[in-house]
Amino acid sequence: MAFDGLTHFDDEGGAHMVDVGGKEVTSRVAVAAATVTMAAETFQKVKNRQMKKGDVIEVARLAGITGAKRTSDLIPLCHPIGLDSVSLDFDLVEEANRIDIRATASVSSRTGVEMEALTAASVAALTIYDMCKAVDRGMVIGEVKLLLKDGGKSGRWER
Amino acid sequence: MAFDGLTHFDDEGGAHMVDVGGKEVTSRVAVAAATVTMAAETFQKVKNRQMKKGDVIEVARLAGITGAKRTSDLIPLCHPIGLDSVSLDFDLVEEANRIDIRATASVSSRTGVEMEALTAASVAALTIYDMCKAVDRGMVIGEVKLLLKDGGKSGRWER
Amino acid sequence: MAFDGLTHFDDEGGAHMVDVGGKEVTSRVAVAAATVTMAAETFQKVKNRQMKKGDVIEVARLAGITGAKRTSDLIPLCHPIGLDSVSLDFDLVEEANRIDIRATASVSSRTGVEMEALTAASVAALTIYDMCKAVDRGMVIGEVKLLLKDGGKSGRWER
Amino acid sequence: MAFDGLTHFDDEGGAHMVDVGGKEVTSRVAVAAATVTMAAETFQKVKNRQMKKGDVIEVARLAGITGAKRTSDLIPLCHPIGLDSVSLDFDLVEEANRIDIRATASVSSRTGVEMEALTAASVAALTIYDMCKAVDRGMVIGEVKLLLKDGGKSGRWER
Amino acid sequence: MAFDGLTHFDDEGGAHMVDVGGKEVTSRVAVAAATVTMAAETFQKVKNRQMKKGDVIEVARLAGITGAKRTSDLIPLCHPIGLDSVSLDFDLVEEANRIDIRATASVSSRTGVEMEALTAASVAALTIYDMCKAVDRGMVIGEVKLLLKDGGKSGRWER
Amino acid sequence: MAFDGLTHFDDEGGAHMVDVGGKEVTSRVAVAAATVTMAAETFQKVKNRQMKKGDVIEVARLAGITGAKRTSDLIPLCHPIGLDSVSLDFDLVEEANRIDIRATASVSSRTGVEMEALTAASVAALTIYDMCKAVDRGMVIGEVKLLLKDGGKSGRWER
Repeated sequence: MAFDGLTHFDDEGGAHMVDVGGKEVTSRVAVAAATVTMAAETFQKVKNRQMKKGDVIEVARLAGITGAKRTSDLIPLCHPIGLDSVSLDFDLVEEANRIDIRATASVSSRTGVEMEALTAASVAALTIYDMCKAVDRGMVIGEVKLLLKDGGKSGRWER
Repeated sequence: MAFDGLTHFDDEGGAHMVDVGGKEVTSRVAVAAATVTMAAETFQKVKNRQMKKGDVIEVARLAGITGAKRTSDLIPLCHPIGLDSVSLDFDLVEEANRIDIRATASVSSRTGVEMEALTAASVAALTIYDMCKAVDRGMVIGEVKLLLKDGGKSGRWER
Repeated sequence: MAFDGLTHFDDEGGAHMVDVGGKEVTSRVAVAAATVTMAAETFQKVKNRQMKKGDVIEVARLAGITGAKRTSDLIPLCHPIGLDSVSLDFDLVEEANRIDIRATASVSSRTGVEMEALTAASVAALTIYDMCKAVDRGMVIGEVKLLLKDGGKSGRWER
Repeated sequence: MAFDGLTHFDDEGGAHMVDVGGKEVTSRVAVAAATVTMAAETFQKVKNRQMKKGDVIEVARLAGITGAKRTSDLIPLCHPIGLDSVSLDFDLVEEANRIDIRATASVSSRTGVEMEALTAASVAALTIYDMCKAVDRGMVIGEVKLLLKDGGKSGRWER
Repeated sequence: MAFDGLTHFDDEGGAHMVDVGGKEVTSRVAVAAATVTMAAETFQKVKNRQMKKGDVIEVARLAGITGAKRTSDLIPLCHPIGLDSVSLDFDLVEEANRIDIRATASVSSRTGVEMEALTAASVAALTIYDMCKAVDRGMVIGEVKLLLKDGGKSGRWER
Repeated sequence: MAFDGLTHFDDEGGAHMVDVGGKEVTSRVAVAAATVTMAAETFQKVKNRQMKKGDVIEVARLAGITGAKRTSDLIPLCHPIGLDSVSLDFDLVEEANRIDIRATASVSSRTGVEMEALTAASVAALTIYDMCKAVDRGMVIGEVKLLLKDGGKSGRWER
């Protein structure tokens, strides 16, 4: 099999956890996004609960942080790494009945935190779905994507 | 706080795991979808590896199945339940350089498996991202959504 | 070794997970309590954040619920069971600078949920400690205890 | 919201995992305590089993060690860290029918191990409860508290 | 692909968690074995510690029980099930410097507990290795195998 | 109790996680082996599926990698460490109807990765059993053993 750049497979096609032993420990950061689009009525319910007890957003925020810690349990070939920080921001876009999620993760490690940031954003979005599904099963999670990564040999990448 | 249908909070706004003790154990099923859109070159790499060792899709399939089993670890207010079955289908949509994922989960339980199906689809999509990110950081996961649920008191819902 | 009622050991002293296969599946409930006592200044900080974003109590509440789901991962001889419901109540006792936690868990199972309720209360208390430890390392978690259990062959027990 | 020292929340009240990326990796240690008070008869059963197979204390000791490893799974905003050592000591205080638990954890890290030591002590105490609950549901876990921490910028703290 | 009886793959070769939704909940049991063979000197150390604190066997026993609870986390296509009981027996075979492990698991479920029994035996054996590896890296775990299964549609199987 | 080299116990026989705080962070590697022997017919089924979708070996490979990441969850006194790489090789030994598994793990750490390599090999072997058990319950996992370790103060060991 000619090498095609998919580094999670060896020359014979076997999956492996890529050896990062030769890489330097450097400061690494990644930012990922996700959205949740819902019915107008559902959006208003979420909005009305902000800044109160029973705030959907705060539950999703914690789920995103704890989800980031489970990344290497979920993604088979992902290295188990520590985390220096994880945080999530939520933007309630009223005209679109959409919640925009942004997750930032950082670590001092031999490998990056892109998957941790993407997992944090995904789990936060799934949690919003879970909290609101009793009133709106049609919600759609969209545009889960990397916005930025920095640190390591490959340096900065920005969408 | 007037009751607004968000059942994961009690009357005073405290989050809780909803009591399903009074519900019947019935056969429940859910089907969820996700997509991963990538560069044409990345799509060809994934396609070229199908039916061989080193198949990105088969790694994602296993990750989706094992991810479904972690659902209640990830989603804070989700009930821990068993699973009768989990399966994933993948469709390589060449004209759009997009992989369409469909995850089906079923259980005999007092509560539904929507979150398990959505988590399976999300984790499979994240795994495709992880496998291909060395060649394409710009991939986008989109349209994570429920297609169908059946069983339980609220019966069938179909998108 | 004469039998002394410690059922988690067999006749020869080996630890085992007690066989509950012959027990009936019945509705079971347990209520447990814990307290966290802190400096007056710390107590006021927690109180001032109630009903706002950044509410220590709401983070502890979620941690208690998710902790209950990890009970059989933590307690070696505890059966892995599902959960029908978990909820936590918090009472801010101003005159004592103390937070009183009450955790309730229920399940339809062959074995009880005492350990799940106690774990929920303990993890909620530890989380309050974690949230406030930057300002008060001297906080004390106290009186983690069962208040009530019901269901199963041994019936109701109340403190 | 005026800053009140609760570092697990950002300026707007959102929970986050505090950024420790700028902190130095140093040797850190923490010692925590817990107690379990029980009926005299229960205490004698535990005591009679010491130094034999079927020793409640040895099961609790292992549970405390394995519990310490789960700390960041349990406490939402706790950093995932390695551990250099974990050990537990137990003191059977006959005149009070009380078992005193002391847990010590250490790590070379950017953040402390207070929560790991407290979790080890709590899980050991919960495990003693679990092992003896068939004969004594009234046991009380008390005084879960930090005794000492050392290392890191804030230096030594001792109760 | 002609069907060859490997039920964990569907007609097109995709892995899936087999649907057990149509199966009956029945009482199921499985017994598995493993052995650990070691140097004579190592064997004597293990033997000398039996019935004392610091007993290698008792640590392995607990590890086997807790390992059984993690089976569906480890084996990708294994159903998450509860457990009615888990126990392990150890036989110190002096003439062969070998420890024989026997693990029994039972459950009332739609699927069997063979993997739980085999995982319990394997994890117990690995734990003996871990406890003794400082003095004997050459130990060999052997003959991990199913001895018996009963219950379910396929009935009893005995080696 | 005279010290007998079993470092996982302290002077009084209490189990503890050995303190590695004083050890240097060095590059460490370990290689472990396992075998699975099966009926000739089963062996042919596995062989026929190689290089196709539905390949038993590729599922076992992923399970071995993800299993390595769970090592410190399974082995009570094992330190939680990161991993720099994990890979598995499989050799189908036709004349013996046997699959030979070789697992390699590496890390930059204060402690070795022997248990991670052994756990990877064991979990891969258990997964082969699980995938084929519908057609062959008599399969035997054998010769789980360390082949090599290098790095750290004790240096290289080779079988």
